[in-house]
Amino acid sequence: MTDVVEQGEEGLTKSALKKKAKEEEKARKKAEKAAKVKEAEQVREAAEGPDYAAAHYGKLPLHQSQSRPNRKRTDIATLSAKNDSEHVLLRARIQTSRLQSNKMAFLSLRQRTDTIQAMIAVDDKQVSRQMVKWAASLSDESIVLVHGTVVKSPESIKSCSIDDVEIQVSELWLVAGLEGRLPFSLEDASRSETAPEVEGQFSRVLLDTRLNNRIIDLRTQTNQAIFKLQHAIGDLFRDYLNNNGFTEIHSPKLQGAATESGATVFKVGYFKGDAFLAQSPQLAKQMAIAADFERVYEIGPVFRAEDSNTHRHLTEFIGLDLEMTIEEHYHEVKELLDGMLKTIFKGLKERYAKEIAVVGKQFEVEEFKWREETLTLTFREAVDLLVEDGVDREHLDDINTENEKRLGRLVKAKYDIDYFIIDKFPLELRPFYTMPDPNDPTLTNSYDFFMRGEEILSGAQRIHDPEFLCRQMRAKSVDPESMKGYIDGFRMGCPPHGGGGIGLERVLMLFLKLNNIRRASLFPRDPKRLEP
Amino acid sequence: MTDVVEQGEEGLTKSALKKKAKEEEKARKKAEKAAKVKEAEQVREAAEGPDYAAAHYGKLPLHQSQSRPNRKRTDIATLSAKNDSEHVLLRARIQTSRLQSNKMAFLSLRQRTDTIQAMIAVDDKQVSRQMVKWAASLSDESIVLVHGTVVKSPESIKSCSIDDVEIQVSELWLVAGLEGRLPFSLEDASRSETAPEVEGQFSRVLLDTRLNNRIIDLRTQTNQAIFKLQHAIGDLFRDYLNNNGFTEIHSPKLQGAATESGATVFKVGYFKGDAFLAQSPQLAKQMAIAADFERVYEIGPVFRAEDSNTHRHLTEFIGLDLEMTIEEHYHEVKELLDGMLKTIFKGLKERYAKEIAVVGKQFEVEEFKWREETLTLTFREAVDLLVEDGVDREHLDDINTENEKRLGRLVKAKYDIDYFIIDKFPLELRPFYTMPDPNDPTLTNSYDFFMRGEEILSGAQRIHDPEFLCRQMRAKSVDPESMKGYIDGFRMGCPPHGGGGIGLERVLMLFLKLNNIRRASLFPRDPKRLEP
Repeated sequence: MTDVVEQGEEGLTKSALKKKAKEEEKARKKAEKAAKVKEAEQVREAAEGPDYAAAHYGKLPLHQSQSRPNRKRTDIATLSAKNDSEHVLLRARIQTSRLQSNKMAFLSLRQRTDTIQAMIAVDDKQVSRQMVKWAASLSDESIVLVHGTVVKSPESIKSCSIDDVEIQVSELWLVAGLEGRLPFSLEDASRSETAPEVEGQFSRVLLDTRLNNRIIDLRTQTNQAIFKLQHAIGDLFRDYLNNNGFTEIHSPKLQGAATESGATVFKVGYFKGDAFLAQSPQLAKQMAIAADFERVYEIGPVFRAEDSNTHRHLTEFIGLDLEMTIEEHYHEVKELLDGMLKTIFKGLKERYAKEIAVVGKQFEVEEFKWREETLTLTFREAVDLLVEDGVDREHLDDINTENEKRLGRLVKAKYDIDYFIIDKFPLELRPFYTMPDPNDPTLTNSYDFFMRGEEILSGAQRIHDPEFLCRQMRAKSVDPESMKGYIDGFRMGCPPHGGGGIGLERVLMLFLKLNNIRRASLFPRDPKRLEP
Repeated sequence: MTDVVEQGEEGLTKSALKKKAKEEEKARKKAEKAAKVKEAEQVREAAEGPDYAAAHYGKLPLHQSQSRPNRKRTDIATLSAKNDSEHVLLRARIQTSRLQSNKMAFLSLRQRTDTIQAMIAVDDKQVSRQMVKWAASLSDESIVLVHGTVVKSPESIKSCSIDDVEIQVSELWLVAGLEGRLPFSLEDASRSETAPEVEGQFSRVLLDTRLNNRIIDLRTQTNQAIFKLQHAIGDLFRDYLNNNGFTEIHSPKLQGAATESGATVFKVGYFKGDAFLAQSPQLAKQMAIAADFERVYEIGPVFRAEDSNTHRHLTEFIGLDLEMTIEEHYHEVKELLDGMLKTIFKGLKERYAKEIAVVGKQFEVEEFKWREETLTLTFREAVDLLVEDGVDREHLDDINTENEKRLGRLVKAKYDIDYFIIDKFPLELRPFYTMPDPNDPTLTNSYDFFMRGEEILSGAQRIHDPEFLCRQMRAKSVDPESMKGYIDGFRMGCPPHGGGGIGLERVLMLFLKLNNIRRASLFPRDPKRLEP
């Protein structure tokens, strides 16, 4: 008997099998649905008798764009006492719900960074006991469509961002419910990261748990604000450069050869050969300069195959890169970069105070400080400051991460600022394409920019002369033949130029003091994480 | 003896070898330079006797930011008769040079999309015969620093974009010269692509030759204009969406699993495992919607491992993608996309007339036409139009590229427009995540947008219900287990939503009728091209 069945199953064609499975699935679903509907009806009727509010609540059918009545939808953020007694229609998430009595329930409704209180109370024609019960039974994070009236609140509602009005619900419809349990509550995910934790009282959500369930994690008001600020940084960067005569370019991420440093490049199978993912748009930006673009910028992904598992490294991040011709001196570039960053800081502070405050509730945001005249130290002056503070000079051929932070603290203590520049790095610390200083061949025309003691921008004047470039490559043991296309780009005449590259996520992390770069990336990638 | 020498060489340490090579190179360079300088001096003196203009011209030393006199530089584009007799200082390329007599030479100076004539004429103290000769001897495409006086031109200078003034040169300095010959002249690279070619008279430059020498090719005024327009499209897209409440996101291009269709995805070595390059931000955009972002867009690279060698396929291109929640009907999305595209067309036409005209000199640009009320056909209506025109209905299960173009011609003939929409595509032509039509399960809530008979945008309402999504996946033979993370994203409640994706290069190519998408990409990538 078993044999026969197995043979029979195997005897079916693949498509017939699929069809069969589909039909079974369909029948099962139908039966399940009917049972659920019946159960719900029985419960209701047993409890309350026929429901006079039945037409005012329930689960909506799957939204397939069935109709278009063109009714206005309202944003929670726009509501205040001035809207008192207005009728509103809105879609929102249920952040929390609470059954006050068997006649009244409260919902906290959320849209992005805002919440408002909704009250649903039994009356004799619109809202029934069954409706109140159903409303309170909806899972947190359900999406609902709410009809209601704006009502001035007698006292400030502390639990909501809109604190002077609430919504008196007249209809409530479930747009999308949940299947299964939330991995963590948004309340837990929103707790202060800096307030002392009282044991047993509540729990914080670990970063890994958040990132494994990033879709839920991103819904917190904090994360909504963080990514509005990420968008703002990009816009401020772009506006500043557009106003300064720059052209936005898009350079290919697929490269024919491993450039700059082969060890940290991802290899891609490319038809019958190989390609490599660009570690930066450095070469493309410079080629655009050789092609007369004069001033270019690019906002795009940058790939680093470094097995670094630190708080500030990602394998894919967004580079804000620019390159420009130099007329007289590379400080033209340094000053433009400085002006751009200060414009970003100022723009965030002035136009995004609300979002910064939202993030500040979860992360201790010491206000980010800078001054109009940016402090610029030479590398030597920076080293001297560290030596004065007790660091051994012989460990200061380079300034490592630890000493960078120490320097940040020294500058903060001395000047009360979180932003400064170091100029004139030693030749041996910079890539082969960096222009040496005209007076001291051990130094270069290069700079790094720092926020809260961490590097966020690196840049320099580049070598635009092909012969000199080849010489410098050989001195750094890079074979000019391996980068022939790049060098050839300069043989047909290239103007003097310089530029810099910024990590978007680093600027965001350091401005807000998020302490881990993964919090500043929508779906972060590191050596151990490729999902979601 | 040979043995000894070889041993000796091999016996040196690597760094000593490098040092030796460096010293030899240095000595060689020094000798070479001295010889050149001497030769030049001899030539000069033999010809003309001592040169009273010697301090007014020559090759500048390598620009290493030696000084910063803060002298104002002038943009050619800003000059006109109003600047008559002003002294100017500017850096430009020599587009062409012509020795008129042994007392006078003309240079055509170029900055991006503009050219101006410069005259260098012997006088008795500033400009010598040697200086004129030297000026005329500079290679085309050399970069020079010019001091001079703006002089009103007695007649219109037809060969230059600035036609009412020229520059009388007083000093001329070579900033960067050329090593070797240009692969083609910019004059040849700028010839009309549509005017009939007279045999033997002049040659056009083939696309492959251009792309192999893209840095030179990009310098043409046409290409400078094309990439200003590419930048403009991105800015107009972004501004429109920023004004409509969208948040810009950056989603990872490195994916843990091959999504959508495994056959056309690039595989990347990722530490000890594999990753895949995102074929679109589709899944990430939808996850952002499930994470409450409400309205998102992304501008970023999209990778397609398709071995398509056509005029309109690239393996890497820039996607302009957006996704938004739907309140009542997916036409909200279609209308927003339509409004966005019309704003782009209008913005280009109104604000970039100059650049469009520059491109028009090389490519026959039939003016791109659209109307305020966009023509929208259903898929069925589009098929009917083709059938009326004589296409066999049974070949119209899908509308192939050839029939798309035919449809474009039909619409152009009937309505005199180059832009229209097709709505309601059959289910079998769309991906599994497309929402079916509520009334006809063989159709979907999906649309394509067309420019000059070619598709530039594809989009739809998406399925936001996880169970229904799994069912549709199985119906299209996609294993839901293979995309678990994606589906799980919808289990915690996702609002109804839709969106679309645009190819930036396609919009640019079709608006300007460039006929090949490679012309709309800075450094194009196709199955056969990974360089430069």
